Amino acid sequence: MRSLFALLVCSLFLSGPKAFGQSGDEEVEQVAKFFDHVLTEGQCYPWLHYLCKEVGHRVAGSAAGAAAVEYSQQILDSIGCDKVWTQEVEVRHWSRGSIEKCKVVQSNTLGDLELSVVALGYSAPTPNLGLKAEVIEVKSLDELRKLPSSQVKGKFVFFNGPMDPKKINTFHAYGAAGSQRTSGPRVAAQKGAVGALVRSLTLKNDDVPHSGVTIFKQEKPIPAAALGIQSADKLSALLAQEPKAKVLLELNCQDLGKRKTYNVIGEIKGSVYPDEIIVVGGHLDSWDLGEGAHDDGAGCVHAMQVLHSFKALGIRPKHTIRCVLFANEESGLAGGRKYAAEAERKGEKHIAAIESDGGGHAPRGFAMDALPHVLKPAYAKAQNWRSLVAPYGFYELTTGGSGADISPLKKLGVVLFGFRPDSQRYFDYHHSRTDVFENVHRRELELGAAGIAAWVYLIDKYGLQ
Amino acid sequence: MRSLFALLVCSLFLSGPKAFGQSGDEEVEQVAKFFDHVLTEGQCYPWLHYLCKEVGHRVAGSAAGAAAVEYSQQILDSIGCDKVWTQEVEVRHWSRGSIEKCKVVQSNTLGDLELSVVALGYSAPTPNLGLKAEVIEVKSLDELRKLPSSQVKGKFVFFNGPMDPKKINTFHAYGAAGSQRTSGPRVAAQKGAVGALVRSLTLKNDDVPHSGVTIFKQEKPIPAAALGIQSADKLSALLAQEPKAKVLLELNCQDLGKRKTYNVIGEIKGSVYPDEIIVVGGHLDSWDLGEGAHDDGAGCVHAMQVLHSFKALGIRPKHTIRCVLFANEESGLAGGRKYAAEAERKGEKHIAAIESDGGGHAPRGFAMDALPHVLKPAYAKAQNWRSLVAPYGFYELTTGGSGADISPLKKLGVVLFGFRPDSQRYFDYHHSRTDVFENVHRRELELGAAGIAAWVYLIDKYGLQ
Repeated sequence: MRSLFALLVCSLFLSGPKAFGQSGDEEVEQVAKFFDHVLTEGQCYPWLHYLCKEVGHRVAGSAAGAAAVEYSQQILDSIGCDKVWTQEVEVRHWSRGSIEKCKVVQSNTLGDLELSVVALGYSAPTPNLGLKAEVIEVKSLDELRKLPSSQVKGKFVFFNGPMDPKKINTFHAYGAAGSQRTSGPRVAAQKGAVGALVRSLTLKNDDVPHSGVTIFKQEKPIPAAALGIQSADKLSALLAQEPKAKVLLELNCQDLGKRKTYNVIGEIKGSVYPDEIIVVGGHLDSWDLGEGAHDDGAGCVHAMQVLHSFKALGIRPKHTIRCVLFANEESGLAGGRKYAAEAERKGEKHIAAIESDGGGHAPRGFAMDALPHVLKPAYAKAQNWRSLVAPYGFYELTTGGSGADISPLKKLGVVLFGFRPDSQRYFDYHHSRTDVFENVHRRELELGAAGIAAWVYLIDKYGLQ
Repeated sequence: MRSLFALLVCSLFLSGPKAFGQSGDEEVEQVAKFFDHVLTEGQCYPWLHYLCKEVGHRVAGSAAGAAAVEYSQQILDSIGCDKVWTQEVEVRHWSRGSIEKCKVVQSNTLGDLELSVVALGYSAPTPNLGLKAEVIEVKSLDELRKLPSSQVKGKFVFFNGPMDPKKINTFHAYGAAGSQRTSGPRVAAQKGAVGALVRSLTLKNDDVPHSGVTIFKQEKPIPAAALGIQSADKLSALLAQEPKAKVLLELNCQDLGKRKTYNVIGEIKGSVYPDEIIVVGGHLDSWDLGEGAHDDGAGCVHAMQVLHSFKALGIRPKHTIRCVLFANEESGLAGGRKYAAEAERKGEKHIAAIESDGGGHAPRGFAMDALPHVLKPAYAKAQNWRSLVAPYGFYELTTGGSGADISPLKKLGVVLFGFRPDSQRYFDYHHSRTDVFENVHRRELELGAAGIAAWVYLIDKYGLQ
């Protein structure tokens, strides 16, 4: 694209800031200040660099998790928060170990076929020499539920239902396919399976395996692993030829039992309503592959950037604005539960909570959730602000979802918002070794932070009732 | 992000397809068919792979340019177009050559300092041993215009005005800074400068230089090159210390004179109005760095995908739909001018033209342009369709711009549309060695193609008057 003339005369219909009540111009300017600040002096990108490259991935309860707790407190201190503190949280620390191997053994047509694999979180280890068994393939959890145990017993269950590429928002495709990973191994164990293999939850056609939690309840955990999707396709093709082919899986992951970790909290005290709180947060823990850059380093630095921008712009909020970096979203949500329990115990009044846990991509908008009688007036109010943030790519305001860590606040009557970035690339990286700093785009990250800051500003100024 | 429950209940307010006139449900389904098709059976991504990796970059008039003409005709044939043909276009073929070097020589503080550089299109070469001169730095074309020639004569003019990171749409920042590259060297030559160095037009903080055309008119061309922005920053810092420092530039680019190339055209004949035409296009030429993946391989495969989807879905359009791959957008727009001149000469009636030349990123919407009396009713009509494409990320419908190649059709009363993808990453790659296939995301590319196809469908069905 060469010619400039067409660009210079371009006027954005939807993007042209519209009048907003009587104080329209003032709000247009104020929102612009947040974007100007973050796009020129924002610190979220260098903070994320440190979190990814110096701290690295940070499973709740791990040594790196402790380093992340320390580092984020230092940032919140350096911003000039009025108060920075932690909340102790107990987590079950699971460690991946050093051995993750999977192959089809002695196939008639292919010999030994190596498959790309990672253990799922809370998987059991295999015996030292590995676990060898036949495989039964299903395309969904429902399909497994309908199978008699006799067809499952002693085998690996291979969950091979792909994410649906026709769903435009990839989180919806993830939601539809995800029970294979979260609940599949548990149901397989109930039916006597010796292990589970799950097709990675991604739409990218490569062979990078994607981990994530799997949940066992009363069942004794079995070895459960994710296959790269090209490996999953190869295994499926082979099973069509040789239904009796055996897979050998080796994992030496470990459940290390209970550990302590911490929610990290910093706040700017409100000038008018110091006892009414607006939370902005992300989760500090990550999976132990890659660097937790999009999931959820991006959300953590978004939240810290909000406080930094208020301080740097000299805006003293009326309500207390609190940055909460939750302790363990990935493996149990103990951090979110603890925060809500403490808020309830202390009788704290939270008027809103915003979570960023959809990655650091270019913004698309917000989702909202609350108890029905709270949601209705809040949604009506928030609708008024859409034209202020739409010029920055915040087009959507939907209802029905927010963020996992803040969800326990719903029952306390808090209005919840989830930041919603563009979803196309998120599951390319999610829970895999490619979720690294290099895959986060500086301006996209900054636009998210600035929009969340502007949204907090509007909530603080106008309330939600 | 782990928890699935929040996703499953998520309902999109803005994204929920709204009733569209009386035939709302039918149109919702029809639009969905285009997305379903492209996201599961689209060919645009493998076509782009071939164009980038087998053909490579393709300056108008080059051997690779000829290969691109041949390849795209074959694709259009294979799609099942009713007719495929070419239009001969004459272009001035400029070749980059093999030598591009730039350094500060004999700086007191730094010794010889290498600078990252590429020639601008239509730059003159330097003498064989290079061109050595002092440097005068300006921050804009206006600043140069105000300088007396005595301060410029015999020197390099160094245009160092950055793109403005505060502009949310990066094309606006490009538009504001771009005259330094397109017109700066010409004005410098008028004032007696021996050469020009231009800060690359990018917002990415690296040292990759970005080329592009520079335009000389009556002036004798002078050597003109783009510096990587880290090199530009270094040179600026050095000049602040040592204003008399000299730069040595070596370029052996060449103007090879007139060559022939071709617009490539394929069409599906209309069933009701075969003599009324809807154009969908991109430009086949690229700069000679990288692979022309986003600029504008993406636009070409978008346009071909539109015809492919109509054929594959068995939708016979009422109007003739014509894919036009323009010959040389980058260096003169002769392809666009030729196409419009032929349309006028033959008295062809075009009702609309859509160009994709903003890259292969996730869609944001369309811009519209036309003569005022044509634009008004067309905009009113097109507004009705927004709710049909908004669920797919096509949020914006703006006025005032379209695409360079289709712009000569405006005076014929044609309604013009420019596809507008997300702009944040485009100038990271634009006209540089990093504009390669690997930087195009499959789903983002496909979403653009599907939305353009749906838009063509709506124009075909309802017209624009």
